[in-house]
Amino acid sequence: MKLATYKDGSRDGQLVVVSRDLSTAHHANGIAGRLQQVLDDWNFLSPQLQDLYETLNQGKARHAFAFEPAQCMAPLPRACQWADGSAYLNHVELVRKARGAEVPESFYTDPLMYQGGSDDLLGPCDDIVVPSEKMGIDFESEVAVITGDLPMGVSPDAAIDGIRLLMLANDVSLRHLIPAELAKGFGFLQSKPATAFSPVAVTPDELGTAWQGGRVHLTLQTQWNGRKVGLCEAGPEMTFHFGQLIAHLATTRRVRAGSIVGSGTVSNKDWSRGYSCIAEKRAIETIESGAPVTEFMRYGDTVRIEMKGSDGQSVFGAIEQTVAAPG
Amino acid sequence: MKLATYKDGSRDGQLVVVSRDLSTAHHANGIAGRLQQVLDDWNFLSPQLQDLYETLNQGKARHAFAFEPAQCMAPLPRACQWADGSAYLNHVELVRKARGAEVPESFYTDPLMYQGGSDDLLGPCDDIVVPSEKMGIDFESEVAVITGDLPMGVSPDAAIDGIRLLMLANDVSLRHLIPAELAKGFGFLQSKPATAFSPVAVTPDELGTAWQGGRVHLTLQTQWNGRKVGLCEAGPEMTFHFGQLIAHLATTRRVRAGSIVGSGTVSNKDWSRGYSCIAEKRAIETIESGAPVTEFMRYGDTVRIEMKGSDGQSVFGAIEQTVAAPG
Repeated sequence: MKLATYKDGSRDGQLVVVSRDLSTAHHANGIAGRLQQVLDDWNFLSPQLQDLYETLNQGKARHAFAFEPAQCMAPLPRACQWADGSAYLNHVELVRKARGAEVPESFYTDPLMYQGGSDDLLGPCDDIVVPSEKMGIDFESEVAVITGDLPMGVSPDAAIDGIRLLMLANDVSLRHLIPAELAKGFGFLQSKPATAFSPVAVTPDELGTAWQGGRVHLTLQTQWNGRKVGLCEAGPEMTFHFGQLIAHLATTRRVRAGSIVGSGTVSNKDWSRGYSCIAEKRAIETIESGAPVTEFMRYGDTVRIEMKGSDGQSVFGAIEQTVAAPG
Repeated sequence: MKLATYKDGSRDGQLVVVSRDLSTAHHANGIAGRLQQVLDDWNFLSPQLQDLYETLNQGKARHAFAFEPAQCMAPLPRACQWADGSAYLNHVELVRKARGAEVPESFYTDPLMYQGGSDDLLGPCDDIVVPSEKMGIDFESEVAVITGDLPMGVSPDAAIDGIRLLMLANDVSLRHLIPAELAKGFGFLQSKPATAFSPVAVTPDELGTAWQGGRVHLTLQTQWNGRKVGLCEAGPEMTFHFGQLIAHLATTRRVRAGSIVGSGTVSNKDWSRGYSCIAEKRAIETIESGAPVTEFMRYGDTVRIEMKGSDGQSVFGAIEQTVAAPG
């Protein structure tokens, strides 16, 4: 099934069930008002939502209305956890190669992951508000999952079974803040402003055979200012699958329902597929010609991130954001 | 006023108002069921809780019961954000000196802060469950605040005004996992398991004149296995006050109500005051005699963290945890 959170003036929004083709939606308020409620009590509430979803898909839901992605908050407008992996090693290899650094051998067995802020997650059409254009504003097109409760030490396979929903994410990064921040040794903080998510979150069964071994075998499309810049395959080159990423996170602590785990920038070895973040384009330029040419985003720039199923239909709806100055 | 969250089998627990002397409590369920609700609507709900608090302190609350810290969850059992500073530069200086490293000049003007996980925050008497005793289990006695909504770019002074509640925290660290994790460049993840918080969270006015300029001018007491190991002054040597820490976090994003911001390990230049984490004791031993002598915590070890007001009364109640193996 497909779920979204509609803006209603509240902090957590209003849960709606969305039809498979993203054309119609229906309030879920007879079942649950907020998505976190559903995640807290998944086994009881999700079958009821699934029933409503099927009725909606059959065109029989009595109070269905036209689905508008612009009315969406993030599926979870605030979450108890947002941890983002960097599971496409090709991305890491490129960025490091551009600055003449090696990829440590351990990176192929021990996932990179950072803890992100989750108090202010953006809807798919919310502006990317950044205090200065000089900060190196970049998008990062990613796949992300929302988990149920998982115990400390969960195995990668069991962690796959604990995935409740999938989404797309735009993990906005402020590239010029990263070197100084990482040099301090405590990870990202100011260099990772609010992350945006796709209009809908979908259960793994919606992906059919494209969901295999904890990976999404579909193409992630990225447009920058209306120009297609990335058509990257999200499946085969994901070095660590989502079960491995979650298990990494759960090594020394439980992972609680509603935790969001991201894949990191989707990246392919075949450069003709383009890029899912500008930093990677600049890395390729540096490798090819010694210096980056492409500039980062400016105020007014737009980014569009979408993934289509094997039937050509948008699976999650599109993230469509504009970069803006504060207030 | 003083607020706590009682265990009731639910994920977010039951909000209770606690008397100033921590002897009695009263359910707040006529006003709000959960602390996050109060933070979401502070101006409307907090005066109602304050009224109940005053009635409780006068011994006139009709359904008061004996307050039991062991029944407490963390004041926010899960939060939308947990960001922990390292505001006592003496701690950073000691740890670096022990390994022969300099403290960069920028550390005195640009706060260190890491983004922590907030899906599973522990109650004051919950066990510290760690998969292996060999991970270098350490406590970190800290002060922490819970904020209201703050805009991007908030000033340090305005950020102080945005502090709703204060707590104590035990930011448990797995020291032997830190070097490899920080070498990866993405900050702490596995090396920071679930953090525990004091039984009660208190509004700043409860601290009286001890709350000055965004700092708590009281003594933080730490006992390890029943032995007093730290009597550290939390006020004067806090290089960055809480307003500065919050403003640092809010540089490139909004900070939403219910965000928790920590001070980092409280640390004093006068070594006779003891320590608030074992790593610091080991650093001092290394500086004095070339090698650490004190071992980290083992299964069965206990830690107790408490802060008393100028009247000698416990302000927040005590964190009292035992280290344990997984279930």
